[in-house]
Amino acid sequence: MKKTYFDHNATTAIDNEVFDAMMPYFKEKFGNPSSPHSLGTVARQAVNRAREQVASSVGAQPSQVIFTSGGSEANNLFIQGTAGYLKPSRIIVSAIEHPCIMRPTQELTRGTVNKWSLRKLAVNKSGQIDLDDADRAISEQRPSLISVMLANNETGVIQDVATIAEKARNTGAWIHTDAIQAFGKIPLDFISLKVHAMTLSSHKIYGPKGAAALVIDKKLLLKPLIFGGGHENGFRSGTENIPAIVGFGLACQLAQNRITEMTVHISTIREYLEERLLNMGAIIFGLSASRLPNTCYFALPDIEGETLVICLDKAGFAVASGAACSSVTPGQSYVLEAMGVEPLLARCAVRVSLGSGNTITEIKDFLIALNSVVKMLRSINTLVAPN
Amino acid sequence: MKKTYFDHNATTAIDNEVFDAMMPYFKEKFGNPSSPHSLGTVARQAVNRAREQVASSVGAQPSQVIFTSGGSEANNLFIQGTAGYLKPSRIIVSAIEHPCIMRPTQELTRGTVNKWSLRKLAVNKSGQIDLDDADRAISEQRPSLISVMLANNETGVIQDVATIAEKARNTGAWIHTDAIQAFGKIPLDFISLKVHAMTLSSHKIYGPKGAAALVIDKKLLLKPLIFGGGHENGFRSGTENIPAIVGFGLACQLAQNRITEMTVHISTIREYLEERLLNMGAIIFGLSASRLPNTCYFALPDIEGETLVICLDKAGFAVASGAACSSVTPGQSYVLEAMGVEPLLARCAVRVSLGSGNTITEIKDFLIALNSVVKMLRSINTLVAPN
Repeated sequence: MKKTYFDHNATTAIDNEVFDAMMPYFKEKFGNPSSPHSLGTVARQAVNRAREQVASSVGAQPSQVIFTSGGSEANNLFIQGTAGYLKPSRIIVSAIEHPCIMRPTQELTRGTVNKWSLRKLAVNKSGQIDLDDADRAISEQRPSLISVMLANNETGVIQDVATIAEKARNTGAWIHTDAIQAFGKIPLDFISLKVHAMTLSSHKIYGPKGAAALVIDKKLLLKPLIFGGGHENGFRSGTENIPAIVGFGLACQLAQNRITEMTVHISTIREYLEERLLNMGAIIFGLSASRLPNTCYFALPDIEGETLVICLDKAGFAVASGAACSSVTPGQSYVLEAMGVEPLLARCAVRVSLGSGNTITEIKDFLIALNSVVKMLRSINTLVAPN
Repeated sequence: MKKTYFDHNATTAIDNEVFDAMMPYFKEKFGNPSSPHSLGTVARQAVNRAREQVASSVGAQPSQVIFTSGGSEANNLFIQGTAGYLKPSRIIVSAIEHPCIMRPTQELTRGTVNKWSLRKLAVNKSGQIDLDDADRAISEQRPSLISVMLANNETGVIQDVATIAEKARNTGAWIHTDAIQAFGKIPLDFISLKVHAMTLSSHKIYGPKGAAALVIDKKLLLKPLIFGGGHENGFRSGTENIPAIVGFGLACQLAQNRITEMTVHISTIREYLEERLLNMGAIIFGLSASRLPNTCYFALPDIEGETLVICLDKAGFAVASGAACSSVTPGQSYVLEAMGVEPLLARCAVRVSLGSGNTITEIKDFLIALNSVVKMLRSINTLVAPN
């Protein structure tokens, strides 16, 4: 059965052009960039070109780009890497960070010696980080580390990172943003965000899995996670994953080239979808906030999200439930909890995340399928109260 | 110009079958294994199958395999991961470990609190770890961690890991082996090696870059390097690099299937090469020791290695110099230094590492080119004494 893919915040299929660009690096130009012969040089040049493409897509310099194997590694590199050179003090993150920020942060607060203290920033009902709370937290805590995501993976709500970064800089804190979800969906400029570090990932922007970057202000003191041969200026050892890095570089360039066109197209079809969902009685989370143009996170109050996802999958549509958005061990959405959404409603959350290839026809077909599934589920009354 | 590749210990071109197996996972079966829909399930099944292939190729169970992005990460995961749950005490590694073991180990010995002490095991002139020294070190130091490589990347010399592991176990130490270079070149069995953990890598066995594994005894206590969504049983978070993992799995299976045939072929052509090199007056490092069948590490005493590598590259042959074997910041070979090789001779080291596709004709052509380059270099007297 043809599958319509509406789960682009989870991962994307690789772009044809990106795929073609990667292919020679598996069998012909397969050298190790550290090798002193010409096959090594070809690989080294490919990494350099990709580094320029990544940097240029966010207004940074190539020397600011540290390639990693993925977004989780890059986020851990920031949290653990900066903490490695700081006296343990206070770290501030928003309550809706992805587990790959939240968990390494919580890890800093453990242990018998060298404990950090963690302060989470509250979010409002629309899923926006509460700027007053950020103000309070920064002036009271005088943190040495702060990390706030640019757009949330579940709701798509865009955060005012630059404002928080400005406050952070006044206290001398290092400030980082996880821009994985925002990248490729809204224009991104490293300097305007005023952060010291930013995480980007390839497989969310039609690039391959296995490549990502931490873009850094070169003042940042960063201890590597992976020690060894001294690759990536000593910040990340290990033979470079050349095909993935080549693909990531091109994916960045294409994302930048297409962003205006993409935004217009995606916004239009999402608007069509959301109008109809509201008419069906859906709650759309973060509706009043500035959101990524591709993300629609909704709940039909009497339909359990996980059940709906399974039924829609059978009907040919790949969407995500709130519980499955960011972890291999699904539970209730901590994002919706932080937004103060009632647990019973949170259980109904479903995320549609559109991609540049989706069409209005697919949306129309989806709505037909959704209506039919909902009618069926209502007839058997799936939602049971939690224990 | 056609390039003959003799640098398989640095990296390998991907096998055709492996390449074909990976292809569907870029554009069609591109799902995120954590996704609850059928595209996610397809990806999850692919990871499971690869895990079985990796495990089976070394006589382990699938649940013992932790996928990482590369060998450097896997080695760091063992060193930092076990240290994360131990009271700082003593760690023993051989003097010829790869930087991705040596550097994280040295890192444990730094800092103001929680310092580890490091004891390096001596190697003899043939490049073998001195078993008497290992005995002494283990009984005197009572270490809690030990790591010794199974085969050295420069010399190809195979180490008696099982004997050291047995001694290690008597003291209650966790023992690890970096089997990256040995894997696919000699038969490998996790249980016979008696270690608690073993590192394998994909891109040295005709698999793709971007995948590797730490195979563990499940008693091992291991703190993750990368925290997040809880992938890999919580040991390594981050969206799985599906195409790379699929390729790695198949590469393991093929390596196992082909090992006998490969060993016979490669040993034969290496013998041919080494006979002629000895006739030319070359010193072959580790000649009297048990070595990987593919590796020939030699020096022509009056010809500088780096110069020879560059000239051979121009003549169409990709080989490595001793200085460039394991680091992006080449210096003198620490392996040859540990073997007591004179610095002037060490500067002449060149490594030929053969692959399953190399032929006797290529060796003959190489010898012709080598003779011609050497004649030319001798006529201009390249070797200058170090400052």
